[in-house]
Amino acid sequence: MTAAPTPVIGGATRVYVLLGDPIAQVRAPGLLNPVLARRGTDAVLVPMHVAPGDVAPVVDGLRRVVNVHGILVTVPHKATALTLADRVTARARLAGSVNALRREPDGSWSADTFDGVGFVRGLVAGGHRPHGLRTCVVGAGGAGSAIAVALLDAGVAGLCLVDTDAGRLDTLRRRLSDAYPGRVDAATRPRLADVDLVVNATPLGLRPDDPLPFPVADLPAHAVVAEIIMSPAETPLLRAARQRQLAGHPGEPMLAQQIDSYLEFFGL
Amino acid sequence: MTAAPTPVIGGATRVYVLLGDPIAQVRAPGLLNPVLARRGTDAVLVPMHVAPGDVAPVVDGLRRVVNVHGILVTVPHKATALTLADRVTARARLAGSVNALRREPDGSWSADTFDGVGFVRGLVAGGHRPHGLRTCVVGAGGAGSAIAVALLDAGVAGLCLVDTDAGRLDTLRRRLSDAYPGRVDAATRPRLADVDLVVNATPLGLRPDDPLPFPVADLPAHAVVAEIIMSPAETPLLRAARQRQLAGHPGEPMLAQQIDSYLEFFGL
Repeated sequence: MTAAPTPVIGGATRVYVLLGDPIAQVRAPGLLNPVLARRGTDAVLVPMHVAPGDVAPVVDGLRRVVNVHGILVTVPHKATALTLADRVTARARLAGSVNALRREPDGSWSADTFDGVGFVRGLVAGGHRPHGLRTCVVGAGGAGSAIAVALLDAGVAGLCLVDTDAGRLDTLRRRLSDAYPGRVDAATRPRLADVDLVVNATPLGLRPDDPLPFPVADLPAHAVVAEIIMSPAETPLLRAARQRQLAGHPGEPMLAQQIDSYLEFFGL
Repeated sequence: MTAAPTPVIGGATRVYVLLGDPIAQVRAPGLLNPVLARRGTDAVLVPMHVAPGDVAPVVDGLRRVVNVHGILVTVPHKATALTLADRVTARARLAGSVNALRREPDGSWSADTFDGVGFVRGLVAGGHRPHGLRTCVVGAGGAGSAIAVALLDAGVAGLCLVDTDAGRLDTLRRRLSDAYPGRVDAATRPRLADVDLVVNATPLGLRPDDPLPFPVADLPAHAVVAEIIMSPAETPLLRAARQRQLAGHPGEPMLAQQIDSYLEFFGL
């Protein structure tokens, strides 16, 4: 046990809420609260388990609470949360999702997404600079969209989006092609032969009997295989990459790197 | 600093919320959370500052949060909260207010009030048994009503309600007379000459320049003067009682005794 795992909560404590469904697995309270406690910041992050149909009324209620200063959002509420903010950053609108909302001094709510920048920061901290790389993001959902935007912002040479849902894929491809012309491609099946970096942004690997999200054997020998699943730490995909002696990048750094972004966004 | 001032908050933590306006002065999180932390109970109490007009939508939102298992309510929301529960105890209905709501296994919400029982427990712990006493409760608001009900339940010989608001006074007098026939009286001005125990349930004494809620000089020499104001610990009323060498009973025990009631009510 660390010296100060949780801030002392009093009547004047600023409250931040994390919305998700399910919620038991979330890591952000366990990472953020010790930082607040160590700094002596009078604020606390509390998890709230909310079903998809209840997100709008719950956020409406929380916005009315004077000392709730911010809301973090995780799966599966990130796209819904975008529609509940008064102001959304361009990158979050491109990604189609937000994972943090904050109360502004005038009482309005602004939203941004840190999934993508957290992923890229973690990748760079792990020794893999994305600039100039040919990249592939498998999974065009909330996390994949945010990562794709952040990789394009970080200067990748090209990015191929892969998703089995052709409709979802095409919507995202068109949005990103408009913003980053000439660098975005899309496919319903991964083409990995000339890829430098591939990211698993699907949920495949959460369960032990999941199939691999893409065939590791198709990758060139210098490719980096990145994961966003945090538990297990070594997913079947990362194990397959290691067995092929490819460089692997785990899911953990993406969240760890976001903690600083959250603190900055909330002014804590 | 104690060893474990606040529970460690993870994704599976049960969340309890305290609603009030203002909120900075509330003591319950600072009292309850260390108990939860010492016991290793995976639950936390968080203060939420909510204006009167926002209580209904905020409670509606909180009821939809799967891991919010209970709500504590303080000034000025106790009467409103009574209308938001699916089930209310008889004593809370008599008192006209609730200060605790909990989620039942079937998803419905039950409410009770512990202000009165907390007050009586604190009084007894302080050496003053109310059974058989002639009592006077000054202030027929939320706290005064709950204390009056608990004193009657504890077997006082008689109880005189005092309030300058004749309408509010009469409503409460009639409700209590029906439930406790022959023991309830009411007056807009205190008659203290034959009183054994008098309780200040008005806010007078919160501010240093407040007048005394009743004239201490009118009390008999054996009378006990009880306060529900917690800060300052010695109110001008308690100081006046001490100067007359009357027994005084401070406001603190009423809340301290309620902590056990809350834990019991929430099954923690």
